Amino acid sequence: MSSEMNMTLKPIGKVRNSVAEPILNAIDADIELAGKMEAIREFHKGLQDAVSELVVFPEWEELLDGIEDFSHVMVLYWPHLIDPERRNLKKIHPMGRKDMPLKGIFATRSPARPNPVLVTVAPLVERSGNVLKVKGMDAVDGSLLVDIKPHLRSFHGEDKPVMAPWMEQLFRELDEP
Amino acid sequence: MSSEMNMTLKPIGKVRNSVAEPILNAIDADIELAGKMEAIREFHKGLQDAVSELVVFPEWEELLDGIEDFSHVMVLYWPHLIDPERRNLKKIHPMGRKDMPLKGIFATRSPARPNPVLVTVAPLVERSGNVLKVKGMDAVDGSLLVDIKPHLRSFHGEDKPVMAPWMEQLFRELDEP
Repeated sequence: MSSEMNMTLKPIGKVRNSVAEPILNAIDADIELAGKMEAIREFHKGLQDAVSELVVFPEWEELLDGIEDFSHVMVLYWPHLIDPERRNLKKIHPMGRKDMPLKGIFATRSPARPNPVLVTVAPLVERSGNVLKVKGMDAVDGSLLVDIKPHLRSFHGEDKPVMAPWMEQLFRELDEP
Repeated sequence: MSSEMNMTLKPIGKVRNSVAEPILNAIDADIELAGKMEAIREFHKGLQDAVSELVVFPEWEELLDGIEDFSHVMVLYWPHLIDPERRNLKKIHPMGRKDMPLKGIFATRSPARPNPVLVTVAPLVERSGNVLKVKGMDAVDGSLLVDIKPHLRSFHGEDKPVMAPWMEQLFRELDEP
């Protein structure tokens, strides 16, 4: 059955913000590690309060009715700048850092993956018609919206997840002052 | 650009479990409300500890390396039994309950949506090779896997989300003894 199934996505809208290109592209790969993490950290801090607009195409506007009653939305989007070739990658160094162990793509949040559908949970600031304002999305301007869902309370203890040591390290380094 | 972009998904594996059909299909629409919620509640309870297998196709097995170090995975999947016609729905009564207000599809977790990519966060029980055992997935047997990601700790206060009153009511009713 799966081979006959049409799993083609249609964009339901676009992300509009001031992020011109993916942070890991923007930062030259040759910068030394310390400078690189500094740049990523700065980017990440600026992101926390940066507002993105989720511009839903008018034909789908009605589907947003009721979303105002949730504090957070789950946004699925397609990173339109990703090179299709990169859908075949198997392992990477997280965030391109050679000092980190090679990990399978499904164990990372790399945007380069067999099906590059990225997921962010973001605070919903405001809805006006077909436009949602949200905070802290690291999507690039022009990213294609795939889906918007209400974010629900935890069912399975996922509010206290355990993460791999390398991911804990990345979180710590992003938080450093 | 978006019109030329190929947003076609390829299944990376399948869900294997004992859920034969979607709970809301299985429960006859004609059952009275009280009996219906009783059946849903029972199904939901059974689900908490039920184990599903995420069977990744062998060509993608290597991409799982490192996932064992996370307590929870985020699973993206395609509900293969969904009628393509239902991708055009605009509003529904949540869980098919006529006593609930009509809500836009993007304000609900209905599987019938323009791009039916469903997302569950589930505790990871075990990995053996290309198979992950997870708990509490309400996907139907044979659902097509789209992506597997590590579940990360909250960035934006999403561990304490506010939900719409009707969703709070559904959560309460599902929890009743």
